[in-house]
Amino acid sequence: MTHTDRPLDVLILAAGQGTRMRSALPKVLHPVAGRPMVAWAVKAAQDLGARRVVVVTGHGADAVEAALQAPGVAFARQERQRGTGDAFLSGAAALEGGAGLEGGEMDADILVLYGDTPMLRVETLRELLADHRARASAMTVLTGELPDATGYGRILRGAGGDVEGIVEQKDASDEQRRIGEFNSGVYVFDAQAPRLARQIGNDNASGEYYLTDLLGLYRAAGAPVRAFKLADAGEVEGANDRVGLAALETAMNRRIVERHMRAGVTVQRPDTVVVEDTVELGQDVTLEPGVILRGRTRVAPGVTVGAYSVLTDTVLEQGVTVGAHSVLEGAQVGRGSDVGPFARLRPGSVLGEGVHIGNFVETKNAVLAQGVKAGHLAYLGDVEIGDETNVGAGTIVANFDGVNKHRTQVGAGVFIGSNSTLIAPRVVGDAAFIAAGSAVHADVPEGALAVARGQQRTLEGWSRRYWGGLREGVERKLPWLAGWLGRAD
Amino acid sequence: MTHTDRPLDVLILAAGQGTRMRSALPKVLHPVAGRPMVAWAVKAAQDLGARRVVVVTGHGADAVEAALQAPGVAFARQERQRGTGDAFLSGAAALEGGAGLEGGEMDADILVLYGDTPMLRVETLRELLADHRARASAMTVLTGELPDATGYGRILRGAGGDVEGIVEQKDASDEQRRIGEFNSGVYVFDAQAPRLARQIGNDNASGEYYLTDLLGLYRAAGAPVRAFKLADAGEVEGANDRVGLAALETAMNRRIVERHMRAGVTVQRPDTVVVEDTVELGQDVTLEPGVILRGRTRVAPGVTVGAYSVLTDTVLEQGVTVGAHSVLEGAQVGRGSDVGPFARLRPGSVLGEGVHIGNFVETKNAVLAQGVKAGHLAYLGDVEIGDETNVGAGTIVANFDGVNKHRTQVGAGVFIGSNSTLIAPRVVGDAAFIAAGSAVHADVPEGALAVARGQQRTLEGWSRRYWGGLREGVERKLPWLAGWLGRAD
Amino acid sequence: MTHTDRPLDVLILAAGQGTRMRSALPKVLHPVAGRPMVAWAVKAAQDLGARRVVVVTGHGADAVEAALQAPGVAFARQERQRGTGDAFLSGAAALEGGAGLEGGEMDADILVLYGDTPMLRVETLRELLADHRARASAMTVLTGELPDATGYGRILRGAGGDVEGIVEQKDASDEQRRIGEFNSGVYVFDAQAPRLARQIGNDNASGEYYLTDLLGLYRAAGAPVRAFKLADAGEVEGANDRVGLAALETAMNRRIVERHMRAGVTVQRPDTVVVEDTVELGQDVTLEPGVILRGRTRVAPGVTVGAYSVLTDTVLEQGVTVGAHSVLEGAQVGRGSDVGPFARLRPGSVLGEGVHIGNFVETKNAVLAQGVKAGHLAYLGDVEIGDETNVGAGTIVANFDGVNKHRTQVGAGVFIGSNSTLIAPRVVGDAAFIAAGSAVHADVPEGALAVARGQQRTLEGWSRRYWGGLREGVERKLPWLAGWLGRAD
Repeated sequence: MTHTDRPLDVLILAAGQGTRMRSALPKVLHPVAGRPMVAWAVKAAQDLGARRVVVVTGHGADAVEAALQAPGVAFARQERQRGTGDAFLSGAAALEGGAGLEGGEMDADILVLYGDTPMLRVETLRELLADHRARASAMTVLTGELPDATGYGRILRGAGGDVEGIVEQKDASDEQRRIGEFNSGVYVFDAQAPRLARQIGNDNASGEYYLTDLLGLYRAAGAPVRAFKLADAGEVEGANDRVGLAALETAMNRRIVERHMRAGVTVQRPDTVVVEDTVELGQDVTLEPGVILRGRTRVAPGVTVGAYSVLTDTVLEQGVTVGAHSVLEGAQVGRGSDVGPFARLRPGSVLGEGVHIGNFVETKNAVLAQGVKAGHLAYLGDVEIGDETNVGAGTIVANFDGVNKHRTQVGAGVFIGSNSTLIAPRVVGDAAFIAAGSAVHADVPEGALAVARGQQRTLEGWSRRYWGGLREGVERKLPWLAGWLGRAD
Repeated sequence: MTHTDRPLDVLILAAGQGTRMRSALPKVLHPVAGRPMVAWAVKAAQDLGARRVVVVTGHGADAVEAALQAPGVAFARQERQRGTGDAFLSGAAALEGGAGLEGGEMDADILVLYGDTPMLRVETLRELLADHRARASAMTVLTGELPDATGYGRILRGAGGDVEGIVEQKDASDEQRRIGEFNSGVYVFDAQAPRLARQIGNDNASGEYYLTDLLGLYRAAGAPVRAFKLADAGEVEGANDRVGLAALETAMNRRIVERHMRAGVTVQRPDTVVVEDTVELGQDVTLEPGVILRGRTRVAPGVTVGAYSVLTDTVLEQGVTVGAHSVLEGAQVGRGSDVGPFARLRPGSVLGEGVHIGNFVETKNAVLAQGVKAGHLAYLGDVEIGDETNVGAGTIVANFDGVNKHRTQVGAGVFIGSNSTLIAPRVVGDAAFIAAGSAVHADVPEGALAVARGQQRTLEGWSRRYWGGLREGVERKLPWLAGWLGRAD
Repeated sequence: MTHTDRPLDVLILAAGQGTRMRSALPKVLHPVAGRPMVAWAVKAAQDLGARRVVVVTGHGADAVEAALQAPGVAFARQERQRGTGDAFLSGAAALEGGAGLEGGEMDADILVLYGDTPMLRVETLRELLADHRARASAMTVLTGELPDATGYGRILRGAGGDVEGIVEQKDASDEQRRIGEFNSGVYVFDAQAPRLARQIGNDNASGEYYLTDLLGLYRAAGAPVRAFKLADAGEVEGANDRVGLAALETAMNRRIVERHMRAGVTVQRPDTVVVEDTVELGQDVTLEPGVILRGRTRVAPGVTVGAYSVLTDTVLEQGVTVGAHSVLEGAQVGRGSDVGPFARLRPGSVLGEGVHIGNFVETKNAVLAQGVKAGHLAYLGDVEIGDETNVGAGTIVANFDGVNKHRTQVGAGVFIGSNSTLIAPRVVGDAAFIAAGSAVHADVPEGALAVARGQQRTLEGWSRRYWGGLREGVERKLPWLAGWLGRAD
């Protein structure tokens, strides 16, 4: 078996409490760019093709485990917080158990990641592993370099470049404190690590077991320990409080948005836009300021999304325009349709080609065929509408009887007059015409006119009596009307 | 009387014109984070427990004084702009007058603040005062340190660290210009200051009286002058134009938002969010991008406020969700309620538990009891609605007769059908049912059905004549309809 | 003819492809602050009073030329991309042709600009030209200075300060690479340039013709070549990809917004606001966060535009307030009117003095006279409305018959009850009163009452049967109603 054939196991340490987050939510579940921090580590492990992924949980273990349920992901509980060395052993035991193997038979490389460093790229990890394997290292430390690495453990390199030790801030000499290369805490170990880790002691001030001690144990065994240095130390930045969390959120979002920009997406004000990692954008898409794209949203080439619109799990086909201030969720918008401003498409909204949805219009479980127009102030819920039907301003599909929702079927080429109400369940045939202001409480056959409103009665001269009765207020507030009243008295 | 027992008087110099603001509004009234700049100084004085606060006004004095009316705040007019020394004397005269004390009996420390440096923290001022008192200083200068302090007066320290002088930029030697410690203009004086200040002359190029001259007068009297250096020189940053004003606005907002983040609030994009100083946020509150919180807004723990929502003087109880693009003002939202997106709650909106307000719904002077639902396109003004009542889409409470507003009372368990109008004043009893499309112009007793709409008439075949009459347009614009017309001809 | 009398011709090189933009749109047509990048160069040329402007096009020539059609702007096609020298010759030929002059008679200075450097200020170019003319230079190179100019051609200055050469990055010695002064590519030439440019060869690695070679040709002819150094090297920043484009967009917007701020406009969060170059803002205008102002928008002194509002080609007169989340396009808003939040004014909306447009209201081709109020959920399309008319909540002007739009005329002092529909074409006389819920299908004379709704029928006891029929759902979902049903059984 060559080095590059070796399987990879990944341990993710995610047991810490994160007191400074001041949260009821375990630290590693705080989301960054729409994904819990620890899920970024799990995703990295999966993208690396890990054979087994074990997440070591502790604080808030139930919640963390519930959030990460997935095939190939196992959990190990670290019952007490006794240091990273102890966490590693908990995880390693689960690895062994999961494999049904004896310790001696372990053959995989073991990568140790953390639940609170979501910025670490899978590309970086691939390079780290390649380096580890190419140089036949027993242990490789992922390091970074900073002008001032105060607070971090510093890397002590030997003449040949191998790592001879890691010295913590508090134990470092003045000279060592000037070292800029620091320990990220991410390591690759060969299969000896679990065995060696059992020798880690806790004979130190805090009484904890430190995973860093493995370095000395490897070296004592004569095994080579190397470092792999990050090009960008920011990749191992973690979050200790919400200020740090916001910094990660911003940095991750910037990374995602820049990826899209380099691929041909115009983003007018990148710092105001939110794009989650799962979103797909075609070439020449334009995102106006303040756009938020979440989940499985897909936008076809050339589409413009208007300012401050929020799209979740929504598909926009080619030629679509989304006006400013629209909120779309679980919607599908067909070619050449235009939506908004101020549109609200809720789940189950399926718009065909060339559909027009204007301002203050809400759709839900609504299948609108080609060319349907609903331009103003309408609610279309639980409804199917055929080709070219015109939905007048103020139309309401009354889908609720107080307990249940009912569906309505409207044909093609129907004209629904303004301020109409379709009381579900209702069937309106093709080319029917509904007079404005109608409350449609019976089905309408194809080609029929339905009028369901009162006949107009006009009472001449009535206004004079009405406004006369309110005279004082009229005089105070409505000078034109007061004048008009006066003219006639 | 020990030093720490000494009362504190605060003079706030706020007479300057601020020509570069290019504004009809006096400079010190320009708001930062929702509060006029000068009001930040007044608030600091009050938070320090000042015995008396005197604001020295000049440019726009009427407006400034009107904006700052409060118990314990007095004003002194500086009729002509003759320098800070003159302004100080104007203020000191008011202090003496206000106290009904002779000059010689003045016993308080006097702190001098400015109307255009809102970033100065009260914590910093407390430290300044403590230092002044602990060291029994006669005068303490608040200083800052910058790598390059060009433009500022520089602090000249003696061997023992005492301040020997302040040299202005134009008078400074090359060596003095390399001094990074600068004069902020904020001072604490002992009670001798008013008497000494009368000796300040104006025998200089500009013919003005400089408050800095007090330093020499104190020293000539053998009294110790000390400096207290700011940790963050940015605290004494002022605004000379709107670019500077925007910088203060951004810095102040960042300070406020970071305070909340450190206390456990998630703010996804801190640079896009606005939170005024008076807002209270519980732990695990989440503010999505672009949220604006103003005034006496209070948000309970765990609540999420959706993107771009603007809340003013609004209370959100636990379990509340506010959807994106909602505008709430003077509203109270009960436990577990959800509001928006696109909701508008206006003053007097009081929502009980579990209320649902959906998109394009406006409430005003509306008391909605537990479980009321108004999901779509409604106007609820001057109304009380009982438990579990369902308000259909498009419902309007017609509260206005052209001159006056009237109230409407809707019972519990009522079903208001879609597109209904309740013409106020109206009483609808419990468990009543209003048919969709009704214009309710008479009261509805408990348990009754009200139908106030036209009966539906259906005219078969009518559409063919109608569309036939518009044939040309139909053929041009509505191919499906043209085909349908064709099929039957 | 003195130097300063000389006419100016401008060549704009805009033929490049910009592969890294990854766009179907030619690179120079990508907009910055609302204007295609190349149009900034054309505007600069026009603002300089150029006699002739020639844009050299190549990639996407048709589109570029279509976008720039304007009097005084001519085009020259560079059929193959053979370098800047070749592009210059193409443009120069067009200059000569356009003038109907022989080469020898050319008398103008020639300024060379680029289609992808929109930040270059016209003030800077004026200084460049003045310097060129004052020093009687034959060629002036616009240069910038950076701490590290890696990648740029470096300027080699002689003892007297004249430019002796430009050395490209790849040809530069180590010492030359430390030079911070770089070639922007912008030049002014005297009238000899076209003749000299014909001598540029392509005997180099890439086989291209380089415009820089003119420098050597001028010097060989004994003509003086000078440099004019930019104060801010950022002015010649171009965009190679969308990340660069976004940086230009942000920088240009910041420049525009700062210009307004220095003139007396309050912008609470400058980084979140978008103001196009064509917008005019009066003193003491306030722009809340996220405001977007486009096109020919003009805002009178003292007006506040609410957060997240988007205005295009809109005029706001004095005393106007625009609430948050409003979208206005092609609208005119009269003195003292207030609009929004959540207002949508579309083209042709002309609001008189003191008009009130509230939330979820849309207007289009709507002329609203003084004092008209439309506070909630209305659609006013193709309508004229007289003084003081009150438009009730939910009012719809039904302007569409399925094919054509019709106009409606509403008089002064009219009261339109809530949820009314005016079916166009309709005339409603002064002081008429329309009962709430009416579908007005006949004209209403002055002073008349129109009622066009059903009479109310009330069926006591009906609810009990209705809810009884839905009993299971009621019991599950509506405990209060279930209790009420129980009480009476």
